[in-house]
Amino acid sequence: MSAKEGKPVLLEELTSAEFKEISRRKPLVIVPIGSVEEHGSHLPLCTDSFQAEEVARRVALAFGGIVCPPIRYGDCRSTRNFPGTISIGFDTLRMLITDILSELDRNGIDKILVITGHAGSAHMIALRLGAQAVVEKNPKLKVMFLSDYDLAYELRGKEFPKGDGHGGLIETSRILNIRPELVRSPRPKGKTWAPPFMIVADPEKYFPSGVLGDSTSATASKGRKIDDYVVGRLCDMISKNFGIKRA
Amino acid sequence: MSAKEGKPVLLEELTSAEFKEISRRKPLVIVPIGSVEEHGSHLPLCTDSFQAEEVARRVALAFGGIVCPPIRYGDCRSTRNFPGTISIGFDTLRMLITDILSELDRNGIDKILVITGHAGSAHMIALRLGAQAVVEKNPKLKVMFLSDYDLAYELRGKEFPKGDGHGGLIETSRILNIRPELVRSPRPKGKTWAPPFMIVADPEKYFPSGVLGDSTSATASKGRKIDDYVVGRLCDMISKNFGIKRA
Amino acid sequence: MSAKEGKPVLLEELTSAEFKEISRRKPLVIVPIGSVEEHGSHLPLCTDSFQAEEVARRVALAFGGIVCPPIRYGDCRSTRNFPGTISIGFDTLRMLITDILSELDRNGIDKILVITGHAGSAHMIALRLGAQAVVEKNPKLKVMFLSDYDLAYELRGKEFPKGDGHGGLIETSRILNIRPELVRSPRPKGKTWAPPFMIVADPEKYFPSGVLGDSTSATASKGRKIDDYVVGRLCDMISKNFGIKRA
Amino acid sequence: MSAKEGKPVLLEELTSAEFKEISRRKPLVIVPIGSVEEHGSHLPLCTDSFQAEEVARRVALAFGGIVCPPIRYGDCRSTRNFPGTISIGFDTLRMLITDILSELDRNGIDKILVITGHAGSAHMIALRLGAQAVVEKNPKLKVMFLSDYDLAYELRGKEFPKGDGHGGLIETSRILNIRPELVRSPRPKGKTWAPPFMIVADPEKYFPSGVLGDSTSATASKGRKIDDYVVGRLCDMISKNFGIKRA
Amino acid sequence: MSAKEGKPVLLEELTSAEFKEISRRKPLVIVPIGSVEEHGSHLPLCTDSFQAEEVARRVALAFGGIVCPPIRYGDCRSTRNFPGTISIGFDTLRMLITDILSELDRNGIDKILVITGHAGSAHMIALRLGAQAVVEKNPKLKVMFLSDYDLAYELRGKEFPKGDGHGGLIETSRILNIRPELVRSPRPKGKTWAPPFMIVADPEKYFPSGVLGDSTSATASKGRKIDDYVVGRLCDMISKNFGIKRA
Amino acid sequence: MSAKEGKPVLLEELTSAEFKEISRRKPLVIVPIGSVEEHGSHLPLCTDSFQAEEVARRVALAFGGIVCPPIRYGDCRSTRNFPGTISIGFDTLRMLITDILSELDRNGIDKILVITGHAGSAHMIALRLGAQAVVEKNPKLKVMFLSDYDLAYELRGKEFPKGDGHGGLIETSRILNIRPELVRSPRPKGKTWAPPFMIVADPEKYFPSGVLGDSTSATASKGRKIDDYVVGRLCDMISKNFGIKRA
Repeated sequence: MSAKEGKPVLLEELTSAEFKEISRRKPLVIVPIGSVEEHGSHLPLCTDSFQAEEVARRVALAFGGIVCPPIRYGDCRSTRNFPGTISIGFDTLRMLITDILSELDRNGIDKILVITGHAGSAHMIALRLGAQAVVEKNPKLKVMFLSDYDLAYELRGKEFPKGDGHGGLIETSRILNIRPELVRSPRPKGKTWAPPFMIVADPEKYFPSGVLGDSTSATASKGRKIDDYVVGRLCDMISKNFGIKRA
Repeated sequence: MSAKEGKPVLLEELTSAEFKEISRRKPLVIVPIGSVEEHGSHLPLCTDSFQAEEVARRVALAFGGIVCPPIRYGDCRSTRNFPGTISIGFDTLRMLITDILSELDRNGIDKILVITGHAGSAHMIALRLGAQAVVEKNPKLKVMFLSDYDLAYELRGKEFPKGDGHGGLIETSRILNIRPELVRSPRPKGKTWAPPFMIVADPEKYFPSGVLGDSTSATASKGRKIDDYVVGRLCDMISKNFGIKRA
Repeated sequence: MSAKEGKPVLLEELTSAEFKEISRRKPLVIVPIGSVEEHGSHLPLCTDSFQAEEVARRVALAFGGIVCPPIRYGDCRSTRNFPGTISIGFDTLRMLITDILSELDRNGIDKILVITGHAGSAHMIALRLGAQAVVEKNPKLKVMFLSDYDLAYELRGKEFPKGDGHGGLIETSRILNIRPELVRSPRPKGKTWAPPFMIVADPEKYFPSGVLGDSTSATASKGRKIDDYVVGRLCDMISKNFGIKRA
Repeated sequence: MSAKEGKPVLLEELTSAEFKEISRRKPLVIVPIGSVEEHGSHLPLCTDSFQAEEVARRVALAFGGIVCPPIRYGDCRSTRNFPGTISIGFDTLRMLITDILSELDRNGIDKILVITGHAGSAHMIALRLGAQAVVEKNPKLKVMFLSDYDLAYELRGKEFPKGDGHGGLIETSRILNIRPELVRSPRPKGKTWAPPFMIVADPEKYFPSGVLGDSTSATASKGRKIDDYVVGRLCDMISKNFGIKRA
Repeated sequence: MSAKEGKPVLLEELTSAEFKEISRRKPLVIVPIGSVEEHGSHLPLCTDSFQAEEVARRVALAFGGIVCPPIRYGDCRSTRNFPGTISIGFDTLRMLITDILSELDRNGIDKILVITGHAGSAHMIALRLGAQAVVEKNPKLKVMFLSDYDLAYELRGKEFPKGDGHGGLIETSRILNIRPELVRSPRPKGKTWAPPFMIVADPEKYFPSGVLGDSTSATASKGRKIDDYVVGRLCDMISKNFGIKRA
Repeated sequence: MSAKEGKPVLLEELTSAEFKEISRRKPLVIVPIGSVEEHGSHLPLCTDSFQAEEVARRVALAFGGIVCPPIRYGDCRSTRNFPGTISIGFDTLRMLITDILSELDRNGIDKILVITGHAGSAHMIALRLGAQAVVEKNPKLKVMFLSDYDLAYELRGKEFPKGDGHGGLIETSRILNIRPELVRSPRPKGKTWAPPFMIVADPEKYFPSGVLGDSTSATASKGRKIDDYVVGRLCDMISKNFGIKRA
């Protein structure tokens, strides 16, 4: 597992014949997913994408995998009315991932990791339903699907506060590690007071900062630790789930 | 808030004119959702329905609300290949709840509680998307949506084990409270060893007992306490969310 | 064929293992469908459901069949703007029945009766299209589909008036037999004067009573006779269509 | 109301400007629908179309209306597996009529007659749902929708046998009147013995003749009488429904 | 290849048995498509249909093929807001052709020509996608799909002006050949000045004449030559593509 | 208009507040679209994306516009069975562009350029239909949509051969200009001999080289000239269409 340096094999740069050749080795293929979404006053709109793509890069290097062109549009719900959020529909996202995985399957790929930096519950289900439909058509296809936040948030209640979330300490630290030049000052803290379990058309009304947690103490070295943790955990599971070893 | 006794106003029994009359008072209308789903060797297929309908009954009595005919079919994923599971599609469920809430809205109802006993994540999102679409058309409509398990599982890590789940101690206790004659012996314990984050076509292969947790120590009185807790928490939130008082 | 007493096997109460066991005997499985729909000033909104569920109960007892949880929401057209009508969409209903029958088929069930108390023509076609799609996927699956009113109305022009219909003499008599406590007084008579073959957005304008026929002379004993007739006719056809004998 | 002679205004022959001019007079616009469907050994595949188009022609002449290009493809169910049947899907037909009526509405047309020669129940509902959707968007649009067989079959049990149907005495007589050169000899009789209310994938198995009734005594003069009856009844209803007089 | 005289075998006139018999010879089946669309001040709304149907007629005579009932409704974009245009939706058209080709395939037909007189790019793609879906299900089915304007416009820059188009010299000449009585005087010239590559909601604003080119010098004999060219080119390609000879 | 150097404003890097601020100035927003598609033995799979993104970059610099995250998946037809092609469905692409443009519209953006490097006709129509739907909802929104190949191919028959196409001289030259390190040797020539107008399931069978034209004489300086031509033409049209001046 490598550092920030190193460029994995990118599907976009291969020729058709090269891809055919490589695909015979049955490599792990990684599909990174993000979003274009408000992330507080300090973080860029594609914060989710940058993180998923960084994890994809490191995992690809670790296993000699191939990284697909990222999908940088996701289904955003609680932030959907903020300026700059470009949310695509649930069905659009479901169809998009279905199509891409079907095509990878048609190409003989049998090991796929779908990793999403955005982890909204509808977004996650759209991706899961799409992946499930493809796996049900070809049960021999192995698809692993998660958000890097499924792992990063394992650190909450340990080194990081329990309530940390969207645009908070963990996310800010990770972007400080990955794209430090894109983190603005000052850094905000915030919370939501949306009425519990209510379906609302205007979630931003209860969430003016657009941030969950306190980003002020974020540092690049914290981010580096989180990323190492996420990538480490993920690589361990990949090894077991797909029965492959790190390069 | 009442005991197991007592029958609330049921939409199914009202005439059109009676409904019109009652709806002028802007009552809380409750839509209970369940599933037809494997629930271990000891619990009936409609376990989820029985719980949601019991909570609906008690909440309706508490607030003078109206209970709609239950939807007893849900979107079941991890148990979908077990005998007796009758799972409906994600889109079917989404459309069904959309239609029902739209019609309640057309009838001038402005306070709706959708309560589901089944809490699978795709099932939840199907219901949430449907509710959200209706609220976005009429933002004045107040819709609260949750599973009783969003509340019941707050007791995990306290009086009940952390890993308790589907068909486990909490669920078995609740059915012992609500429909004791339907709980068979002996009571199972079980777990799942599905590979983490893998999309599989045969989840039952990793989950032969169909049960998460240990149901052997379940009792009706534990079930009663859980139900009281769920109903109490829920009624408090309803009071605040809708600005109404218990009858 | 039995009287009003007796409870058939209910899918909702079976465990997964019990269902598996019973399904080996290839029982008749019955899916009752109703509606939530205006039924005059004297009858409850779920009038259609109560009748279909009563017929389902008696047929299940007659053949040792299993009754599925009812679908109590239907596609209502001419009454759709009345207070209390909760009409679901044509496609929703079509998908719902498709899903349920597909799942019964997946479970190895090979004899299904779909019986609907609501008999609007769009509602009937939605159910028929759904059933047809499932049968075309598995032509060995035997599905019988009808409304109890396909049979009850055979008595029109005989013991009952020709023009009797929605909420009229036959329907009121049947509810007096099945759920007498739910029939209000006084009993209405009514008709529709909708312009023939016109597609209108406001059918209720031409149908203020919401009743077709004269319900004043309805009695429980007439209802009992009608129900006996419907159940008798239906059981005869079931025996022939499925090649099974009454229990 | 006229004889077989006479050609009405055909939409297909008008220029854009002429149509604009005529549409200012708010004419009745007629959309004839048929099918391509087995009709016994003696009748052509477009039997349904020929009848609807003939009725459309006569009605248009009677009221100075405009006839749209016919839709000659319908949704055929019981004959769908016979050679030569070209059945389009339920949703296709529903969308097709929705689009056409929407466009007529956009063009300022406010009186539309949709007349179908094929009268299968799913086919009828597809057309009805489409028409209803357009009327609900613009309730001022007046749409009348029926099959000429809704009227022709009023003669059953009177001058014609009760059980007469598809490709039978009435239909054969009408084609002898409208397109005599297309009726082959000998003329068949037939019936169906499909099991009542069963959903089957192979309806033709129970219906080898593809004919309901006895076509042997059909004559052109009977056909003429039927057509006159249908057109007469229809024109009376049109006058009342749309408030217009025959030309 | 024949002149304007001669009537080919029409699907609409065959009986089921005759069709079965003929289809054993594996004939070419032709599906003509048109539109109901503004065509200048001089041409009728079904101009596109008349041309495609004439080509279909001549091709059918040339190869002993069968002509299906035409689809006279197409997807019109740039003329969609003109009086008299009746445009059907992209998906409607796609489904319609999919259904018809699927049914021809089910009937054992293996050679199909889909010929459209309307050649708007969305319309063409709708038809192409439908045809492609059917061919992908049965790759042995041979489907040829084009507009007669794919061929007629090969004459632009030769005998006819480069910029000639919708309702212009070529189209007017062809209608003068096919349906001379339907061409009005005087004949217009026109052009469009829509902003290049802009997606506009009101294309007619930039295209008031609804005509591209100069129709004043159109003659029937020019039309005859164009039609002969189109039919000749088409028959040559049909011979090669399907491996059949002219009758 | 600038050289290869220079980085425009990227949506992905802006914060929500920055985007809000910039969007007040009503900037041109550019959505680049590509494909993952076989491009001969010498060019990478994302050849189409690289070109569209380069054009987007230069146009954004020229007008002070904002570049959105690219969509790198397109609808590929003739190359869809080649190794490495990852084609998404027509409807997926249509919905994706609809969602993105709708969200830009919601954000107050009123000038959008959608530029696609892939120019297959179905792909183009999917994008066009999506854009059209959004413009019809808000006719004040100005959307310009084209492929850079709509412009680059204006040079065919002039400096470049008429038949040049997919992976040929023009495309190879452009990639030599934009991403020279990704062009492999030797460079192929090729053509297709697909039967004209036939709908085939296996287009690659007639197109083994996957290349149209002769790429051997391609050079970076030719590519530079082509790109300058495309960007120049495009900027001129943008100025007129949107009424804006180059920065």
